[in-house]
Amino acid sequence: MQAPAMNVEQLEQFLALEFSQFFHAQSGLAIEQVSHASARVRQTYNAQFVRPGGTISGPTMMALADFTMYVAVLATIGPVPLAVTTNLNINFLRKPAGRDLIAECRLLKVGKRLAVGEVTILSDGQDEAVAHVTATYSIPRQS
Amino acid sequence: MQAPAMNVEQLEQFLALEFSQFFHAQSGLAIEQVSHASARVRQTYNAQFVRPGGTISGPTMMALADFTMYVAVLATIGPVPLAVTTNLNINFLRKPAGRDLIAECRLLKVGKRLAVGEVTILSDGQDEAVAHVTATYSIPRQS
Amino acid sequence: MQAPAMNVEQLEQFLALEFSQFFHAQSGLAIEQVSHASARVRQTYNAQFVRPGGTISGPTMMALADFTMYVAVLATIGPVPLAVTTNLNINFLRKPAGRDLIAECRLLKVGKRLAVGEVTILSDGQDEAVAHVTATYSIPRQS
Amino acid sequence: MQAPAMNVEQLEQFLALEFSQFFHAQSGLAIEQVSHASARVRQTYNAQFVRPGGTISGPTMMALADFTMYVAVLATIGPVPLAVTTNLNINFLRKPAGRDLIAECRLLKVGKRLAVGEVTILSDGQDEAVAHVTATYSIPRQS
Repeated sequence: MQAPAMNVEQLEQFLALEFSQFFHAQSGLAIEQVSHASARVRQTYNAQFVRPGGTISGPTMMALADFTMYVAVLATIGPVPLAVTTNLNINFLRKPAGRDLIAECRLLKVGKRLAVGEVTILSDGQDEAVAHVTATYSIPRQS
Repeated sequence: MQAPAMNVEQLEQFLALEFSQFFHAQSGLAIEQVSHASARVRQTYNAQFVRPGGTISGPTMMALADFTMYVAVLATIGPVPLAVTTNLNINFLRKPAGRDLIAECRLLKVGKRLAVGEVTILSDGQDEAVAHVTATYSIPRQS
Repeated sequence: MQAPAMNVEQLEQFLALEFSQFFHAQSGLAIEQVSHASARVRQTYNAQFVRPGGTISGPTMMALADFTMYVAVLATIGPVPLAVTTNLNINFLRKPAGRDLIAECRLLKVGKRLAVGEVTILSDGQDEAVAHVTATYSIPRQS
Repeated sequence: MQAPAMNVEQLEQFLALEFSQFFHAQSGLAIEQVSHASARVRQTYNAQFVRPGGTISGPTMMALADFTMYVAVLATIGPVPLAVTTNLNINFLRKPAGRDLIAECRLLKVGKRLAVGEVTILSDGQDEAVAHVTATYSIPRQS
């Protein structure tokens, strides 16, 4: 197994600097685990995410998936601040419980230009996915 | 041309009640126009949406697209509070300017079970789209 | 583990009748394995699938993924001839080798109206996926 | 209006050479119109495309959309034989009639690395789309 290019602590420092509008002390986001080509992120439950019918909002899940994918890309290729999402496709599968969300990302490809991954989102403590995402990041050319 | 099932004022009242976590006085969202099978929504620029490199965050655009699609569905079939997104696919095309975003939704199909639409997101005052979205809503069976 | 609703032999018989334009003696398709909520299908290599640069065509992979998803749906809910694809999203990851393709489908959700699954496509004998697909089938209401 | 980089006749010659497994005398494909950033392609009706319930197969529509997107890319950037699809997302909207299919592609972005477009597929003579596609092509670096 290849070691990750950045560990959890390095990722947290990098993201708190480069991505501070989204990743900050009140965001409720915790990077739980990374390896080469994977990452797991927890989004703490927050009543402001809730929508009619008691479900957690779709945009909350989309933002979590996009962030987890970015963490996995950084863990794999190192600190690249200007990698950007080019495509994200999400299928909403089940109504999430009123609990933390866990996002697990696995990269399917890490090429020179593009990284493609899938993210499964679960309600903490439950087995069945609440959403499934595939996303593509464009990787800037290294100078 | 078929008239919309709800006009802008009716939509605003419905959404302020049913969707108040997302659509409220501070959200910066304005429904600009609706017709049968279409809607246009403005997201006022807000510095908290900004990301490294000066771009507006992907999740801001995903949330706007999802909301605009919901407005178009309501404008077409009337007040259905439990319609839910089942799929959303977004392509990020260009870096948005530091301006309001405009989302224009056109429904491609409104069936008994599913509504499918596309949403084009523009930076206010510019011609080229910054993002393009297709999304599917599941429509609950009417009792 | 729940048993599949149809085994490989029953699926082959059903598909040879109901889906004979696609699944027939010359199609090179073999259902290798099914279980509740999963299926694996082999597409025998055929020179007519090849494209410039020696790669197997995208439509060959899309058709294989769609078929494998249909097999998994049938294996899970039994013979439903009018289930139809409503959405299919494919990411092409690597140039396939000049070999058989193997498609592995796992259903993420089997609801009353919709089934959602993912399909990984591999070149026979290789570890890394050549394509990844998510797809949604609409399931007709049972009378 | 910018002129296309290749006209219909030039495209037909290029594709008959470079893409002969798919574009040939028996394929039933006709490039009807191109401009900078758009293309329209007709797929002649053929009984072998038909599926249970009388509908034209999904893979036929996916292949047509992918081809039309490729034609639009070539018409815009000129003869680039190794442009490849990286992502294709299709929503199936209505059962096609037993008629020719018409695919209309509009490119949303033509960058240095990626081209993104949307394709609307219609049954000839009907107004409502039978399918809607977005696709991304990766453009090889010019030497």
